[in-house]
Amino acid sequence: MEILALILGLVGFGIAIVLYSKIKAEPVGNAVMEEISVAIHDGAMAFLNREYRMLAVFIAVVFILILIGMDYQTAMAFLGGAACSMVCGFIGMKAATRANVRTSEAARTGGQAKALMVSYNGGAVMGLSVASLGLVGVGLAYYFFGGDPGTARYINGFAMGASSIALFARVGGGIYTKAADVGADLVGKVEAGIPEDDPRNPGVIADNVGDCVGDTAGMGADIFESYVGSIIATIAIASAASPTLLAKLGSGENIQSASMILPLVLAMFGLVFSVCGIFSMKILKDKDPAEALRYTTFIAAGLFLVAAFLIIIAMGINTGVFLAIVAGTLAGIVIGLITEYYTASSPIRRIAVASKTGPATNIIHGLAVGLESTAGPVLVICVAILVADYCAGLYGIGIAAVGMLATVGVTMTVDAYGPVADNAGGISEMASLGPEVREITDGLDAIGNTTAAMGKGFAIGSAALTALALFSAYATTVGLDSINLINPLTVVGLLIGGVLPFFIGALTMTSVGRAAGKMVEEIRRQFREIPGLLEGKEGVKPEPEKCIDISAKAALKEMILPGMVAVISPVLVGFVLGKEALGGMLAGALLTGVLLALMMANGGGAWDNAKKFIEKGELAGEKKGTEAHKAAVVGDTVGDPFKDTSGPAMNILVKLMSVISLVIAPLL
Amino acid sequence: MEILALILGLVGFGIAIVLYSKIKAEPVGNAVMEEISVAIHDGAMAFLNREYRMLAVFIAVVFILILIGMDYQTAMAFLGGAACSMVCGFIGMKAATRANVRTSEAARTGGQAKALMVSYNGGAVMGLSVASLGLVGVGLAYYFFGGDPGTARYINGFAMGASSIALFARVGGGIYTKAADVGADLVGKVEAGIPEDDPRNPGVIADNVGDCVGDTAGMGADIFESYVGSIIATIAIASAASPTLLAKLGSGENIQSASMILPLVLAMFGLVFSVCGIFSMKILKDKDPAEALRYTTFIAAGLFLVAAFLIIIAMGINTGVFLAIVAGTLAGIVIGLITEYYTASSPIRRIAVASKTGPATNIIHGLAVGLESTAGPVLVICVAILVADYCAGLYGIGIAAVGMLATVGVTMTVDAYGPVADNAGGISEMASLGPEVREITDGLDAIGNTTAAMGKGFAIGSAALTALALFSAYATTVGLDSINLINPLTVVGLLIGGVLPFFIGALTMTSVGRAAGKMVEEIRRQFREIPGLLEGKEGVKPEPEKCIDISAKAALKEMILPGMVAVISPVLVGFVLGKEALGGMLAGALLTGVLLALMMANGGGAWDNAKKFIEKGELAGEKKGTEAHKAAVVGDTVGDPFKDTSGPAMNILVKLMSVISLVIAPLL
Repeated sequence: MEILALILGLVGFGIAIVLYSKIKAEPVGNAVMEEISVAIHDGAMAFLNREYRMLAVFIAVVFILILIGMDYQTAMAFLGGAACSMVCGFIGMKAATRANVRTSEAARTGGQAKALMVSYNGGAVMGLSVASLGLVGVGLAYYFFGGDPGTARYINGFAMGASSIALFARVGGGIYTKAADVGADLVGKVEAGIPEDDPRNPGVIADNVGDCVGDTAGMGADIFESYVGSIIATIAIASAASPTLLAKLGSGENIQSASMILPLVLAMFGLVFSVCGIFSMKILKDKDPAEALRYTTFIAAGLFLVAAFLIIIAMGINTGVFLAIVAGTLAGIVIGLITEYYTASSPIRRIAVASKTGPATNIIHGLAVGLESTAGPVLVICVAILVADYCAGLYGIGIAAVGMLATVGVTMTVDAYGPVADNAGGISEMASLGPEVREITDGLDAIGNTTAAMGKGFAIGSAALTALALFSAYATTVGLDSINLINPLTVVGLLIGGVLPFFIGALTMTSVGRAAGKMVEEIRRQFREIPGLLEGKEGVKPEPEKCIDISAKAALKEMILPGMVAVISPVLVGFVLGKEALGGMLAGALLTGVLLALMMANGGGAWDNAKKFIEKGELAGEKKGTEAHKAAVVGDTVGDPFKDTSGPAMNILVKLMSVISLVIAPLL
Repeated sequence: MEILALILGLVGFGIAIVLYSKIKAEPVGNAVMEEISVAIHDGAMAFLNREYRMLAVFIAVVFILILIGMDYQTAMAFLGGAACSMVCGFIGMKAATRANVRTSEAARTGGQAKALMVSYNGGAVMGLSVASLGLVGVGLAYYFFGGDPGTARYINGFAMGASSIALFARVGGGIYTKAADVGADLVGKVEAGIPEDDPRNPGVIADNVGDCVGDTAGMGADIFESYVGSIIATIAIASAASPTLLAKLGSGENIQSASMILPLVLAMFGLVFSVCGIFSMKILKDKDPAEALRYTTFIAAGLFLVAAFLIIIAMGINTGVFLAIVAGTLAGIVIGLITEYYTASSPIRRIAVASKTGPATNIIHGLAVGLESTAGPVLVICVAILVADYCAGLYGIGIAAVGMLATVGVTMTVDAYGPVADNAGGISEMASLGPEVREITDGLDAIGNTTAAMGKGFAIGSAALTALALFSAYATTVGLDSINLINPLTVVGLLIGGVLPFFIGALTMTSVGRAAGKMVEEIRRQFREIPGLLEGKEGVKPEPEKCIDISAKAALKEMILPGMVAVISPVLVGFVLGKEALGGMLAGALLTGVLLALMMANGGGAWDNAKKFIEKGELAGEKKGTEAHKAAVVGDTVGDPFKDTSGPAMNILVKLMSVISLVIAPLL
């Protein structure tokens, strides 16, 4: 079966490559467009290369440590996980930075349907890479180690490799993109009063590079990690399952091997149906773009659920396991809908109205919305946990996460479509493509904002379930029957774990604030020192490479500390305070990490959309440029690092700590 | 022994009354001052009356519910706890609203030492009321129920009564004060450009009433609850202690009764030394006021520690228990110092510098400082837990909290001094008392800000230890050997508990935002519609009672929902999901409650002081009125509900949920 997974994975990856070459064959448009797109592409790839060079050092060190402290199998798996994640990031970025300008050109010459198709395919390269390389990697690891519950633990190294890369990529990318975005907006929009993505603004190219670096590569690494992590955690739970748990899953004598392979089988079918979903865009592209995007995911999810039911019956596994999958999938959808509510409905009106009394009330209400928005998703996760546990014990929690993530090929496509559309909008503006083109790309971009918000909700929900599955796998592996909260050591672990997301949040917010401050000064300097720039004199150009350099340097420098804290702290707590304290730590980090992630993602999204709400003139008496709008811009700027730097880092932090604990479990 | 506690408590309360009458005998100054002070006094007392009338209904309902569901003893104890807390609030407020104007007058006629004395005594009435009524109440409850480990659980009702009042008082007071403060500042300082506490501003009286209502009554109820809760939790732990735990405490055969009475004995000595500390102000008043305030607490704490050592030896208890007390006391001091760092040192410079690039970067850095500031205190709490547990098991955690809070008479005095000094400053400004007077009252006010920040750190630290002690008491009482985090029900409890502080935070922030919005509109209306008001025309007066009404109505209406959520949720989770899930819930709430409390208190304090830093001209090139200063004012305004409404509510929420769980434990 794992051979089949490998083959399917390779086929999926092949499709991704074909899609990429199809995108490259599309026309790039006029010389200005090409120049801009080359600048974005080169900036993004240059950053990725520098980042990967730094990560190579980190990987080598950890590889050696695992080799010395544990075994070569885990070390190899770690290397494989890291490599797969990096390849996904590389290919996804290539595709995104090629598809952006071609989307603009398609909007100019072919209309909306064509533009949608190009940008969607740009996202699909990332989506398919994540799904298929995940399958290849886990399939390969399973081929070597999975047959025997005794060696299955080596597979955990793969998840650890993927997670480590994810954290650095997410934090680095997040700092890069928001330093550029905040800096460019503060001087451009607020001080100079020029529009977003105006070619006179020296920070605009860096901002667009940042969209690719942060939203495409960062998000891809995040989802890759969840996908791989959920499969591996479920395998680990099954491989260490007690007879009681196994009896809950089915009565056949090969129930353990069946439940070990099931997550991989589900992932295989998920990939096949993702491809179906992606290709259905060919038919759907003439519909309303928002609906078309939604339908592609619905087609994949619907087919997947039917197949999952049949597979489970065919493998002689109890239908309770199927119900756990349904619970996971439904939880993902409901969390997405709650996210949509908080970033689109009455909450953003509340923030917009509060902007009338200035930035302070805007911020107070935005923070309140963020805090409030945690309640619904957490309750949904609680229900999913209760149902999954009732139906299939701890295994149910793992398989629920797998169910949520199985059709990642298409959900990730929709996520990765967002930054491509965003970039296309920026390029249209910078290349002065005229209002009709701008209208199409703006429309696609706006849809991208909604899908991004929902995608974030989905990412958090799946991260929570994945982390919980990893936590369960840790507890089973380390041989604890109880992680007892009455034991003060566990409470100490809980407190330390709980404070880490706050601390990492502080570090990343500070990094963005500091780098954005530098960016502001650089852009102010250029407006001041380059004569004719701000006035838009013919032939006068800004120096975007200086801004790109500020973002890149800040990102690379500032990603180190949060990354190291996340990697080292579980090891430290595990060896100093023991395995029960480490269990408490994982629970604490899971709790506050998920809460902060939700608060920051939803609060940030709400601020962003409250600003857009005013810009669209939907708040009586207010429009772009009024005091209320200025207040809303302040909120949006604060929300930027919330939703795109610190918030997303939380997901990965929580998963990374769990997976490291799982890997070191045999040593404790 | 409990009789002695009762007598000592009554003596302490008598001293508080004597101090109060001494304050009343001081001169009130000229007619303008008297008029302002009467307005503040009447506004504060009117609000307290309305609040207490509403709470009476709540108390009656809960009383009946306890009577039906449990027993009359717990119901009576509940009533007693609620009554004592309300009496403290009433007397403390009376004293504060009498002492404020007399401090101004003392500054005018007697100089700094005299003014310090009056304001300090104003705080001492609250401090002594809290300490002595706590002792009277717990002593009385112990007299009836404490002799026998079987009936000791009735005492828990007293803590529940105190906690319930505390939450409503804190939330109501917090909303009152910040609605007024934010509203008055937004229109007065930001829009109209008139100074703080300017008599033309219609919101100023409401703001000053709010200081008394929120900072005096609210803080008093909070600390009263911690004080009472820590003593009661420790009694509960001792009364249900296992033989292993008792063996850790001492070898005598009456070790259980000795360890049950010890917290009460410590509280008695704490009260005596608090009185010594308070009276030492007579000698210290000519020193630097900041030092004088600090010394009064040091004298009390030093004497207390010596006495505690002797008591423990005399009672045949192991010295490990003393070490736990020392750990608690040291933790309190270190947390206070960390708080001081984050609200006084390089962090506020960072925020001030960030203000140069506008309100958005000010907010980003302020949030980052708040997030970062959680790490130190949490690690200190962890160390205290480890030491206390090592020295004396779970009992050590309870007695550490008692040690921290035993000298509450004097620490609360210093806390309650703050709003008196703040009010005195406001009255001096409104009554145009001239720069020399204003300088004295401003100086006293500034010291009050520092002591307030440290007091908040102390309140959070003691709340964390108290809640943990209550949590341990719950676990022992409910008969659980293990609250197992591997059980998904516990995880669900943890998640629900963890989300509650976020949700309550959202509710209270929204309340302040909404009420402040109404306040802004009312003040704008008065400036617009009352001719000559803004210009300061002779004889033209604002209509402060309308602003007072907005604050009062908002506070009374908006305190209901958070209060009910806090009261009902542990009952619901306990009965629906069971006692292990409820244990998880308490742990989750403890974790996120403490983290949010720290983040909000420190972030808010840092924003406030960053603004003052700029106002004092300590940031090169910036001063009052520059763009950077305006940005800093935005940060300060956001920080207001953080540090004075939502943050302080967290402490009480966490304790209240724990104490309710402890009370309903026998039913689960």
